[in-house]
Amino acid sequence: MKPFHNLHVAVLIMAGPLLASTSAIAAQEASAHQEIVRSGSQPSIAGPAANFTGSVRVDMVWPAKDGVNASGALVTFEPGARSAWHTHPFGQQLVVVSGLGLVQEEGKPIQRIHPGDVVWCPPGIKHWHGAAEKTAMTHLAVTGTGTDGKNVEWMEKVSDEQYRAH
Amino acid sequence: MKPFHNLHVAVLIMAGPLLASTSAIAAQEASAHQEIVRSGSQPSIAGPAANFTGSVRVDMVWPAKDGVNASGALVTFEPGARSAWHTHPFGQQLVVVSGLGLVQEEGKPIQRIHPGDVVWCPPGIKHWHGAAEKTAMTHLAVTGTGTDGKNVEWMEKVSDEQYRAH
Repeated sequence: MKPFHNLHVAVLIMAGPLLASTSAIAAQEASAHQEIVRSGSQPSIAGPAANFTGSVRVDMVWPAKDGVNASGALVTFEPGARSAWHTHPFGQQLVVVSGLGLVQEEGKPIQRIHPGDVVWCPPGIKHWHGAAEKTAMTHLAVTGTGTDGKNVEWMEKVSDEQYRAH
Repeated sequence: MKPFHNLHVAVLIMAGPLLASTSAIAAQEASAHQEIVRSGSQPSIAGPAANFTGSVRVDMVWPAKDGVNASGALVTFEPGARSAWHTHPFGQQLVVVSGLGLVQEEGKPIQRIHPGDVVWCPPGIKHWHGAAEKTAMTHLAVTGTGTDGKNVEWMEKVSDEQYRAH
């Protein structure tokens, strides 16, 4: 798997068109065409040890581009794996696809999340998410991305004590 | 199922914050909290006959809000069902979840899409999508949405002759 760092390059976008009018975007994109990214054509990426505890895999689904300022990625946490504490400057929607997950906002109890649940992580709210202790979890992460490509601010790891407080 | 028209209300967003700085958004949202929308809490919506041929169901996943300017919805087309021709002012990403789908950009051949395929529909490009003649298809539609809540421009229906030209 490629290092996670490459993902940051992949999700760099031009949010500039968002400032333009609808018609301006349409004109600008008149030479664009539908593109199909086939299943299996995007390599899996390992979540880096600096930002995750345990084994985490990231499968890119779509990049932020043009008028859609959010990227989509499937993130799979093995049992016990979790992100470090972090915030998102533009917010993030998490859609649980499979397994049993945990999510916690700083200062609040850990909550369990199940397939089909959708978690909204507002801009600037410190939190973490991951798998349950004995069950893996995959979620789709839809992450708002700025004009500079930035979409996350990483912080300290979630300690075993913090993780087990549920 | 509720009429599709309500969906437009549900996906109205404030894209204004996108024009602000990251820190301004973080400050503005300091009183916000994580929200979990539980599976099964959002009613299915019927795709209206004005914009679709055949039986189509829309299941809202997340609305466009704050720093994420795109909504997510699962759209299920029964065999033979398809959208009318349309464009998206800010573009749309389609992620095929199950079944066998068809997609066509105006003036180009119909293409088959399979689970895991991702289709980028650029702003202003006229196209349609739907199920295969004998197989249903579900895709996640991630749709860029403007400050006025607009995210689609509907056009004429896809005729049976157009649909069968594959």
